[in-house]
Amino acid sequence: MDAKTVELAMQLRDLLARHDQRIVLAESCTSGRIASTLGGLPGISSYLCGGFVVYRNDSKAQWLGIAHAVLDDPAVGPVSMQVTEQLAAAAIERTPEATIGLAITGDIGPGAPAKTDGTVFCALCDRNGQRASKTIHLSAPAPMNAQDIAGRARRLDEAVLYALQFATEFLQ
Amino acid sequence: MDAKTVELAMQLRDLLARHDQRIVLAESCTSGRIASTLGGLPGISSYLCGGFVVYRNDSKAQWLGIAHAVLDDPAVGPVSMQVTEQLAAAAIERTPEATIGLAITGDIGPGAPAKTDGTVFCALCDRNGQRASKTIHLSAPAPMNAQDIAGRARRLDEAVLYALQFATEFLQ
Repeated sequence: MDAKTVELAMQLRDLLARHDQRIVLAESCTSGRIASTLGGLPGISSYLCGGFVVYRNDSKAQWLGIAHAVLDDPAVGPVSMQVTEQLAAAAIERTPEATIGLAITGDIGPGAPAKTDGTVFCALCDRNGQRASKTIHLSAPAPMNAQDIAGRARRLDEAVLYALQFATEFLQ
Repeated sequence: MDAKTVELAMQLRDLLARHDQRIVLAESCTSGRIASTLGGLPGISSYLCGGFVVYRNDSKAQWLGIAHAVLDDPAVGPVSMQVTEQLAAAAIERTPEATIGLAITGDIGPGAPAKTDGTVFCALCDRNGQRASKTIHLSAPAPMNAQDIAGRARRLDEAVLYALQFATEFLQ
């Protein structure tokens, strides 16, 4: 974790504390990286309910009730704002003590289709019906080969940073 | 991620591929760090169903059906082999396409009671009724103050390493 990510994560923790909020996550592309970043902070357990790492369509469907018809629809699909908003809503619905739900989906690569490569969708919702969403375009990476773990990590770190920023702005 | 963790994660991915297995996770203390480590590998989506980051008692109870009576029982509690085994079993039960469930709970600190400080429980189960469990004692850290993020990260990384090693041995 670089210093900026730690700083943002601490800022989010402090905002959750100040506003007496608890967050639940639903992560697809980041695969637990947001949960892990927040989980690295001492004292976070009062404000982080946990998260669903919904890495495959089946986990999105089985755990959070996303319809296979939507996931399989080429005009929507698992990497879409529609599914991301549904994930955030479902996560908060399944977590009575949570007050905020944050979901993220995206195409990190390597090997993502050019059209969606580097696109990340974030969605937030709270119990008062407030919602927010943000589409992010990650920095174009140096061309990644099929086993480029470092290139993938850079993009994942960037996605986490944007998601933390987004949640922080929502709470401010 | 250090080189050894990446190497172990890749070894686990390759074993899952070779044995045609899919893993689901239930992480408490590591808060998505195992999912995130595996999710960093290109091509992992065929073998990683996802995971439950059950960071609080309520998420363990609500999402994976762990009884509050067990979580609240001072003789058992959320950091125990009994709850860890139940988490692994529940994760696989809720994930039809998973063939292996891995769960982890533990007391990472700072501020953990001396008796359990650094103790981590791992449990694995598969669909054939095979089970394994392992109790780990993390290296004694330099004394951590209440905001020691680096010390906490070292222990979390160590817990991830042990968990990956444990899963790799199970599959070999």
